[in-house]
Amino acid sequence: MPRDIRLPENDLAALATGFLLSHGLNAPQAHCLAGILAASQRDGSLSHGLQRLPGTLDTMMHPRFNKHADPAPESVSPAVVRIDAQFGFSCLAAERGIEALIEKAGKVGIGLLAVTNGFHSTALWPLVERVAEAGLVGLSMNPTHAWVAPAGGTKGLLGTNPLAFAWPRKGRPPYVFDFATSAASRADIAMHRNAGKEIPDSWGVNLQGEPTTDPAEVLAGAMLPFGGHKGSAIATMIELMAGPLIGDRTSRQSQHFDQGANAAPCHGELLLAFSPDIIGGAAADEGAESLFSGFSDQNARLPGDRRYRMREASDREGIAVSAVLLERIRDLIEK
Amino acid sequence: MPRDIRLPENDLAALATGFLLSHGLNAPQAHCLAGILAASQRDGSLSHGLQRLPGTLDTMMHPRFNKHADPAPESVSPAVVRIDAQFGFSCLAAERGIEALIEKAGKVGIGLLAVTNGFHSTALWPLVERVAEAGLVGLSMNPTHAWVAPAGGTKGLLGTNPLAFAWPRKGRPPYVFDFATSAASRADIAMHRNAGKEIPDSWGVNLQGEPTTDPAEVLAGAMLPFGGHKGSAIATMIELMAGPLIGDRTSRQSQHFDQGANAAPCHGELLLAFSPDIIGGAAADEGAESLFSGFSDQNARLPGDRRYRMREASDREGIAVSAVLLERIRDLIEK
Repeated sequence: MPRDIRLPENDLAALATGFLLSHGLNAPQAHCLAGILAASQRDGSLSHGLQRLPGTLDTMMHPRFNKHADPAPESVSPAVVRIDAQFGFSCLAAERGIEALIEKAGKVGIGLLAVTNGFHSTALWPLVERVAEAGLVGLSMNPTHAWVAPAGGTKGLLGTNPLAFAWPRKGRPPYVFDFATSAASRADIAMHRNAGKEIPDSWGVNLQGEPTTDPAEVLAGAMLPFGGHKGSAIATMIELMAGPLIGDRTSRQSQHFDQGANAAPCHGELLLAFSPDIIGGAAADEGAESLFSGFSDQNARLPGDRRYRMREASDREGIAVSAVLLERIRDLIEK
Repeated sequence: MPRDIRLPENDLAALATGFLLSHGLNAPQAHCLAGILAASQRDGSLSHGLQRLPGTLDTMMHPRFNKHADPAPESVSPAVVRIDAQFGFSCLAAERGIEALIEKAGKVGIGLLAVTNGFHSTALWPLVERVAEAGLVGLSMNPTHAWVAPAGGTKGLLGTNPLAFAWPRKGRPPYVFDFATSAASRADIAMHRNAGKEIPDSWGVNLQGEPTTDPAEVLAGAMLPFGGHKGSAIATMIELMAGPLIGDRTSRQSQHFDQGANAAPCHGELLLAFSPDIIGGAAADEGAESLFSGFSDQNARLPGDRRYRMREASDREGIAVSAVLLERIRDLIEK
């Protein structure tokens, strides 16, 4: 029976920071990435949690990876800010860019942050949640690698392209969603393969482009978008918006850039922020709350609810981490 | 066998304009709405075409409808413009606001247009296509009426909330999609009912909140979003972004506002425009075209392809309209 150990968030972040520093990553990147991994673990968002840490070694081995990246935002216009992640982990660039984004959106009503040239391996929800904490609406997206066939197609072209959104709520955590636009996550498919289980035939196609329930065939072939041609169109929009629009790679270009290093995808990331106060006036809160009450009236869950419950439990009891994973991470720390 | 008559686009628009003017709609609204209905008919987007014309009479009978609306854009910031449709058809407000939107996005890199208090009965693709013709990326969305239950729910709360997107392409029509975030359109479900056909049980629920294949039960109960909880989250985002964010109604508030008039939904509409030149630099075109070539390489259709083929045929041979519908429209013109 796999055992979990519970740790305070600070201890977990310190462990992850120490791991990353021991492998030569500079302190700003190490602190930022460790904080996001610990927060994901805290919220029960395990596929983006501590288990990502060993994989960062592959990413840091990529010939273009920059352990010394020290990104600085560049103001393009009253509403647009760009930040080049300098081929380090994109989360530090995003973190540093978000301050400028919030400032611009707070003045002009809308802001756009383009993060480029970042190795991306974290969830997007911590970023949009940050925007919402400033009283703004956050929207974020990025390409990944060309694992997903477009609707009607047979070969990988689109990324698993996550979309994340946050709406600020007074006196309570924001409304937040964050999901891949593929029918299932790559991690989910791999988990089925490892467990010897079949998958629904809507998740992907084999090398011949035919639907299959064999997870190994899908991993060798192509995944499919969620929601048929509509999901496929949204995944395509994300490719365009967080790729060419901001002068960065599509998922196919990102995969080519990897050259078999098995690193986290290196690409752009788009963040938008909107000010309800400036755009629509003071009544935004009332309208939104009346919508959310329509969910609770019929016992429909808001997307962030499970994460917030996990967060409360973690804050109270410590964050659960598998003892095996903890041991593995400690073993991988360079002495 | 129902017969089609083919007419040039100008004649069709003139007929629709005459119809609307005869019922007292002012000339700017009549020209704008007629132009969009004719363009939809031309592109084979029939559910948004001429068949909408008789229904405009119900909308114009709504006690709050304003036949004399004469909206003017109001600049809120270097990136944000608002326009109050003054309870006329929203398309005139959108048309007049788009010029200001394009100007702002062309300077600042991003622009937001909030159209409020409009009776909305047209497709969104003509609006985003217009943005793309100016070399910008267009994104648009709006609530409708609370016909759609959220994922995990049983009662109508969300609208059919369309999402439309356009990416400009050099020397060819833009990449455009425009679809409802419900699993099927209300028109589609009604068509099945009228034909005595069953529908897939993923399209909606009955009054008890249970899945059903009976279209009449779904029309009395609630529709469902496309793509399960992911589609539901996107539909919720549209409610928030094109409702409270811009100071306008949610789908439930819009339905309440209708008070049984059976008018087109009255609500807000959000348009965003992005300049690839300013945000990402000159290489946007190359990245996007390499993505699109990945579609044609595997014979996957781009979403706008069918519409563009219909448009070419209509330009060559005239626009097909059912003779019965033409007769009905002519009969309804006030003498």
